[in-house]
Amino acid sequence: MERLRIYVDLSMPDEARHLLIQETSGHELLMPMSPAKSVLSVGKPDASFAQADVAFGQPDAEAVRHAPRLRWVHVSSSGITRYDTLEFRRVMAERGIFVTNSASVYENACALHALGFMLAQARQLPPGLASQVSNGSPAWNALREQSSTLEGETALIIGFGAIGRRLAELLVPLRMRIIGFRRHARGTENVPIIAAEQLPSALSKADHVINILPDSPETRGFFSRSRFEGMKHGSCFYNIGRGVTVDQSALDQALRSGRIAAAWLDVTDPEPLPSSHPLRALPNCHITPHTAGGHRREALTLVRHFLANLRRFEASEPLLDRVM
Amino acid sequence: MERLRIYVDLSMPDEARHLLIQETSGHELLMPMSPAKSVLSVGKPDASFAQADVAFGQPDAEAVRHAPRLRWVHVSSSGITRYDTLEFRRVMAERGIFVTNSASVYENACALHALGFMLAQARQLPPGLASQVSNGSPAWNALREQSSTLEGETALIIGFGAIGRRLAELLVPLRMRIIGFRRHARGTENVPIIAAEQLPSALSKADHVINILPDSPETRGFFSRSRFEGMKHGSCFYNIGRGVTVDQSALDQALRSGRIAAAWLDVTDPEPLPSSHPLRALPNCHITPHTAGGHRREALTLVRHFLANLRRFEASEPLLDRVM
Repeated sequence: MERLRIYVDLSMPDEARHLLIQETSGHELLMPMSPAKSVLSVGKPDASFAQADVAFGQPDAEAVRHAPRLRWVHVSSSGITRYDTLEFRRVMAERGIFVTNSASVYENACALHALGFMLAQARQLPPGLASQVSNGSPAWNALREQSSTLEGETALIIGFGAIGRRLAELLVPLRMRIIGFRRHARGTENVPIIAAEQLPSALSKADHVINILPDSPETRGFFSRSRFEGMKHGSCFYNIGRGVTVDQSALDQALRSGRIAAAWLDVTDPEPLPSSHPLRALPNCHITPHTAGGHRREALTLVRHFLANLRRFEASEPLLDRVM
Repeated sequence: MERLRIYVDLSMPDEARHLLIQETSGHELLMPMSPAKSVLSVGKPDASFAQADVAFGQPDAEAVRHAPRLRWVHVSSSGITRYDTLEFRRVMAERGIFVTNSASVYENACALHALGFMLAQARQLPPGLASQVSNGSPAWNALREQSSTLEGETALIIGFGAIGRRLAELLVPLRMRIIGFRRHARGTENVPIIAAEQLPSALSKADHVINILPDSPETRGFFSRSRFEGMKHGSCFYNIGRGVTVDQSALDQALRSGRIAAAWLDVTDPEPLPSSHPLRALPNCHITPHTAGGHRREALTLVRHFLANLRRFEASEPLLDRVM
C-alpha cells in the first residue's frame, strides 16, 4: 500500500487522536504546531502542508490550491463555504483533487436539534419552565391552550438536503404536513419539493419554517424583509443553517409585530450575537450558540468517518460525502 | 331516541360549549352554577346531579355513588384517581354504571411533552439558551460534547400504557433501545415489557427513565431512595405521571450527588411546588406546571371525544376509553 502523508490540522481529545494514529500506522501524519481550535475554524498554514497527499480538517483554501502533491481534502465540517467558489472548484477539478466533507457526522445531531427547537416551542418550554402557576388558574389554562401537538400543522424545510431528509424522518410520527425547498430537486427526496415560484405561497401557509441554508452568494439574506412579511401570521421560524442567510433586522421586526410568533436560532451573524443586539432582548427569540451539530464523542465520530473514507481512498473506491 | 339528562360540570370556551349544546340537542343538559375550573379539578355537587343519566366532567365520587338514575360517567381527564378505589369500582359494577376517561384526548400531547423534555436535555437547551460562548472556546466545545443524539441510548418507560405506546412510536426514528414496565403486560405492547424482578437491573442500565405512573396506593413513592440509588450513574429522570409516585427528597439527593444528571418534571407534590422547595434551587431540575396534556382547542377535543362516546352510548355500542 502506498505510504501517504496526511496533514491533520484539527485538535482533538486523546481518545480520537489515538484512534487516528493507530489506524493510519501505514502512513505518515503531519500535525501542525497550531491546529485549529474547533471543527469550524481554519488552522494556520504550516510549512509541512506542501508535503501533504491528504488533508483532514479545515486547511487554508489558498494553501490547498497550491499544495503540489495534494490529492484529497477531507473537511471536518458540514459547511464548505470557505472552499465553495467557482475558482476553487475549477482548480480542484483541473488538478483532480477530491474534496469531501463531514456531513454524515453532523446531520443526525443537527436534525435532532431542530426537532428539539420545534418541540420546545410546541410544548411552551421557556414560559412553562419559568412559571409556577396553579392548576386551573387562568394563566395555567392559557399555557395549556398555547401548547400544541404539531399534528396537522405544516413544516416547510428550506435548504432541503441530508439534514432536512433526516428531520423529515424524525417528524414522520408527528403527523405533520412536510414540504421541502431546494434549488435543484433530485427526485429522491422523502418529502414533496416545491419549485421557486411556489415558495411565496408555501411561506404564506407554513406554520413552521426551518432554515437549513448554507452560506453562499445566492443564500445571503435569503430570509429578507419581504419574505418575512409574506409568512403566515403567528408562524415559527427556526435557523440551523447559517446566520448570514437571514436579514436579522427584518426578523427582529417580524418578531416584534407578532408576524412571527417565535424564532429559534442556532446560528447568527455574528457569532456569538452581542448581548446588546436587539434580538437578545426579545422573549420570543431563543438562541443556542451554534451547538446543533455537537454530540458526545463528536471528534471520535469525525475521525471514524475520515478513516472510513481513507480505506476507500486507499482502495480507489468512491468517497463518502464527496462535494467536489 | 331516549332523551338523556346529561350533567356537565366543566367550564369551557364558547366554541366548545356551542358544539356540545348543538350536538346534544335531542337531550337535556344540566349545567351547575359553579362548574369545575379545569379538567383536573372537582366541581361542587349540585342538586340537579340526582336527575342525571350521564355525567361529563369530574363529578364528586360520593355523588356518583348515590345518584339514582346515573348510567354513565365520562371523566374529563386521563387520571381517575378520585374514583379508583375497590369500593367505588364495586358500586359501579353492581349498579352497572359505565366509567370512561379522556385518555385519548391527552396521550399524544403527553407523549410529545416527554419527547420535548428528552430532546431539551439531549440538546442541552437550558445551558445553551443561557450561553453566549464563542465557537471554538473550551466552554463551547464542552457544551457540544455534552449534547447527545440519543442514538443507541436506552429509554425505560415506567407505567407503560397509552402514553407510553405513543412515546415509543415517537422515539422509533431516534434509534434508541426502548423498554417498558407495567404491572400487567397485555402482550400487545409495541416494545418489550419487563417483569417486576427485572426492574432493578433495567433501572441500573437505562440512560433515560420516563415515569408515567398514575396515582394509586401501589404507585405512591414508587421512585424511592433505593430505586434512585440503583439507577445508572448520570442517567436522566422524567416525570409526566403523578408527583406522589416520587420520593422528592430522594430525587433531590440523587440530583445533588450526580447519580441523576437531570430531572424533568411536569408533575410534583404539591402543585405548584413552592418556590422555597429544594428542587427549585437545582440547575439540573426542570419543572413545567402540569401542562403535558395541554394543547390548542383542548376543550373542543374533549367535547368531541365525549360526543363520539355519546353516539356509542345511544347505540348501545362499546364505549371508548372505558376504565370501569
